[in-house]
Amino acid sequence: MCELLGMSANVPTDICFSFTGLIQRGGRTGPHKDGWGITFYEGKGCRTFRDPNPGYNSPIARLVQEYPIKSCAVVSHIRQANRGAVALENTHPFTRELWGKNWTFAHNGQLKGYRSLKNPSFIPIGETDSEYAFCWLLEQLKQRYPRRPSNWPAVFRFIASCAGQLRKKGVFNMLLSDGDYVMAYCSTRLHWLTRRAPFGKATLLDEDVEIDFQRETTPNDVVTVIATQPLTGNEQWQKIEPGEFALFHLGERVL
Amino acid sequence: MCELLGMSANVPTDICFSFTGLIQRGGRTGPHKDGWGITFYEGKGCRTFRDPNPGYNSPIARLVQEYPIKSCAVVSHIRQANRGAVALENTHPFTRELWGKNWTFAHNGQLKGYRSLKNPSFIPIGETDSEYAFCWLLEQLKQRYPRRPSNWPAVFRFIASCAGQLRKKGVFNMLLSDGDYVMAYCSTRLHWLTRRAPFGKATLLDEDVEIDFQRETTPNDVVTVIATQPLTGNEQWQKIEPGEFALFHLGERVL
Repeated sequence: MCELLGMSANVPTDICFSFTGLIQRGGRTGPHKDGWGITFYEGKGCRTFRDPNPGYNSPIARLVQEYPIKSCAVVSHIRQANRGAVALENTHPFTRELWGKNWTFAHNGQLKGYRSLKNPSFIPIGETDSEYAFCWLLEQLKQRYPRRPSNWPAVFRFIASCAGQLRKKGVFNMLLSDGDYVMAYCSTRLHWLTRRAPFGKATLLDEDVEIDFQRETTPNDVVTVIATQPLTGNEQWQKIEPGEFALFHLGERVL
Repeated sequence: MCELLGMSANVPTDICFSFTGLIQRGGRTGPHKDGWGITFYEGKGCRTFRDPNPGYNSPIARLVQEYPIKSCAVVSHIRQANRGAVALENTHPFTRELWGKNWTFAHNGQLKGYRSLKNPSFIPIGETDSEYAFCWLLEQLKQRYPRRPSNWPAVFRFIASCAGQLRKKGVFNMLLSDGDYVMAYCSTRLHWLTRRAPFGKATLLDEDVEIDFQRETTPNDVVTVIATQPLTGNEQWQKIEPGEFALFHLGERVL
């Protein structure tokens, strides 16, 4: 299996603290040694850092921990391979264009019968069940909305219904973002937490690091973090129930 | 204008030396301060490092210079903005999927009337003439070859004829790769150089760095570097004539 990490914020915020916790599970405190990746949105653009090597001793992962890239929407993933070899083309997150927007996807779980998912417009490059599922989701969206839609909550409700179909093929925990919204679909396990004023201190579970968010934030900041397993020990993480989803926009849960 | 850098090699080779030369022109020895990017292919996958900030003092550019990522196909670009704001979504190279392959594109030049290039399947995310041209090229390819072709030299000859049409709209120097081939189309200015045994020493024009390729290579290595302007002072760079193209595969020129 794998672990997911996402962020939605109302001001560009760095994810160094949470990423530092996650990346320890990439071969040190966890078994997810088969690659890692992280996508940061900045305006309509996004950039992805990915490596098929273990995260905990990757020079690129170290850069991401030390260089505070600020973003309002982030999707990250550490991999323990099941379907598809350990290779760059099989490393999440995956990004594709639809309606002139970058869509980014990461998956935790395992699907059966995924090769029968037909996608005339979006062809997988690698061999993972995850990329097949992502291409199929985009295909459903393109068929349902041939032109760019405007009612985004309705679009994400439609995506959740498609994710429900994928869940019937196995385990399908997912993070998906178009740069504005961050969606978390829970098949088995997914948690989230919103930090807002008054900010406190937080301590990572996986590394001896404490942060005082009051020093790092302004009183109006709202930042939501989504993770497979809670990353901090002294904060109240919310569980998303299996079969449910949560949609975040500028740090707030909107659905 | 901008500067282009490409590489094609028969064994995974790092591009640290050439990239160190190019990146100096990103705000230090040259005016290309409006962002930079580099895409490395590894198998069917690729990874892109991009930054809308000047290259010469970017922490991410420093990582790319110091961490020898080895690849057989590389496309890189430093930007001096003309069309489109300085923003991540306008930073080259651009990558899109076609026929289940990653296609990567970078452009030097300026086009007029580019907004009339219609692309039902590939929609630009940013505002650059370059991304419009790339989307239009992919659209032509998809219409000409609805299914994945197998005669790749014919595909690249077709791309060259499309590039000739784009050149009528202004200046269109281009690097394009599918991970196997690296194509250089010259509208005004583009040079290339193949290094093979017996290897010698080379000295960068833009930074006081010398390299002894004999120490870094084996006798069977063949590495071609493509650049807008020669990067070294003591080697014989070939010029591509305006309106012509060169196609490289595993380091060798094949067309």
